[in-house]
Amino acid sequence: MSLQVAQIGEGALIAALGEIFVEVQNLKNQKNLLFGIGDDGAVLAPSELATVATMDLAVEDVHFKTDWSTAHQIGSKIAVANIADIYAMGGDPHSLLVGISLTGKEEVDWVLDLARGIAEEAKKVGAQVIGGDTVRGEKITIAITALGNTSEPIYRSGAKVGDHLVISGLPGASAAGLALLKADKRALFPEITKAHLQPSVDGKKAHALISAGATAMCDLSDGLLVDVTRISEASGIGMRINLDNLDLSSLSEVGIELAVDPISWVLTSGEEHLFIATLPPSAALPEGALQIGEVIQGSGVEVVGEFADARTAIGSSSISLKKWQHFEKRSSN
Amino acid sequence: MSLQVAQIGEGALIAALGEIFVEVQNLKNQKNLLFGIGDDGAVLAPSELATVATMDLAVEDVHFKTDWSTAHQIGSKIAVANIADIYAMGGDPHSLLVGISLTGKEEVDWVLDLARGIAEEAKKVGAQVIGGDTVRGEKITIAITALGNTSEPIYRSGAKVGDHLVISGLPGASAAGLALLKADKRALFPEITKAHLQPSVDGKKAHALISAGATAMCDLSDGLLVDVTRISEASGIGMRINLDNLDLSSLSEVGIELAVDPISWVLTSGEEHLFIATLPPSAALPEGALQIGEVIQGSGVEVVGEFADARTAIGSSSISLKKWQHFEKRSSN
Repeated sequence: MSLQVAQIGEGALIAALGEIFVEVQNLKNQKNLLFGIGDDGAVLAPSELATVATMDLAVEDVHFKTDWSTAHQIGSKIAVANIADIYAMGGDPHSLLVGISLTGKEEVDWVLDLARGIAEEAKKVGAQVIGGDTVRGEKITIAITALGNTSEPIYRSGAKVGDHLVISGLPGASAAGLALLKADKRALFPEITKAHLQPSVDGKKAHALISAGATAMCDLSDGLLVDVTRISEASGIGMRINLDNLDLSSLSEVGIELAVDPISWVLTSGEEHLFIATLPPSAALPEGALQIGEVIQGSGVEVVGEFADARTAIGSSSISLKKWQHFEKRSSN
Repeated sequence: MSLQVAQIGEGALIAALGEIFVEVQNLKNQKNLLFGIGDDGAVLAPSELATVATMDLAVEDVHFKTDWSTAHQIGSKIAVANIADIYAMGGDPHSLLVGISLTGKEEVDWVLDLARGIAEEAKKVGAQVIGGDTVRGEKITIAITALGNTSEPIYRSGAKVGDHLVISGLPGASAAGLALLKADKRALFPEITKAHLQPSVDGKKAHALISAGATAMCDLSDGLLVDVTRISEASGIGMRINLDNLDLSSLSEVGIELAVDPISWVLTSGEEHLFIATLPPSAALPEGALQIGEVIQGSGVEVVGEFADARTAIGSSSISLKKWQHFEKRSSN
């Protein structure tokens, strides 16, 4: 029987967390870190590169549920969300700051597993936890700041008319996984469910899009339509999405099981941390990337082709029409 | 009647917060910021200086109460706590990332006032809010990451035997203010109460201690005894504190009103963001700084002199004796 956080106290918890981070990360191997955990702040060596900085918060029962996810999965997921933001800016993550609000009733082992989830994702990408804060609160809340270096940041605002709209892979699995969890059918498709509970991020996919000449980029954090709209607005251009050629076979069995058209997951699934980019029309499509549309004159995002009617279904369910005022009605043929 | 956050939605709230930060801070005047709010991350220009990074969380009803503090005071206090950590490392703050968890029931004006409190403290020290996150949660939770530059970081670990232990001013007002709030007597001493609700930080005090040759430094965040113990442990030395020569007159009236010995506030008051440092014995004491002890061989923190018996009173009230195992009993004469 594991002790609870309140039984060991803040000092012992911080010491135990520090041990996890050192153990998982081999902190001393990091050249850029002059000082990590254990003072008023961490100190990073000067760099000739620009710094990318981002912060994400996640709250129990809003962003994760402790009965759906292990602590390790929760830590992993929040770390990945922050790491993906650094890649999406054209950066490479090197440091995380981790703030955790705990009720005190958590088992210490649960908290250490959370820390291990964060530290392992950091290690995968060559980053490390360099500091943070632990406090008491009524709901578990996790704040992560990620820092990275970039030689050439890439913004949402650079898309040009005629560019191709591409995504580093097929989205939808996270939303499908969430639907499985809600339907209590996670056991039928464990891999799809895991895509929701513990998404991964592959920085090489972002690097490949940049190498291909990406003019604008972001990660898929809030759903394809939302994130493409952000590029459209930041760049002051329109987007035409055509999903007719996507191979949805990886989602079709779940769709049949749950009686949901998988295209709705493709359009709205977030927290997958694929990368959405615009590429010059002459650019070669990186391996695994999918062209899903093009940049057009004007403003707003329109969905065309066979799947365009999916908008209607989405408008009436998970996305409010008000948010999608840029959408204009358009016949699908 | 102000609208509630849930009534305007996340997009409108983020836009309004962004306007506050731009309005208060004149973001465009900051040379080191290549990109601020509005993408997956902020981008800071390369610097020849090392970077100091810190994070603090604050939770409603644990770190602040909305019926004691205005939103502006809450924002200010949390920003100051983070800014002080940067100064305490020998740095100068330049950027804040702000994560806010809201219930949705807050009035929009309240949230904007919170943002204004953060932005104004940032502006005072030449820093700015460069990004963050807003999410939904059951309790208001605020996470701030502060980033700063330093040409020469200063750690807790550098104290040498024979150094003088100094503090940049008299602590105690924050604890006295909290005691006034709890006794419902804030109106009697508004300035002392404000020291708790909206503490300030003066980076010049940290700079002066560094110029004087500080060998170790931290800010007063958790109380004099706690923070001096941290320097003692990090430096592997002992500390002898003697408070007999302190002028406590600024706290004496509150002490009489509440029937509390002000020395207990001096020893335990946190969140004041004064700076504690060790200086070589030959160093000149900066203006306003107080010598409160010396670095000795051994380990632990001992309080000597006329006030030493205050330990007993403190041990039986706000500080558990278990936490103070380094203390050895010592007669006061």
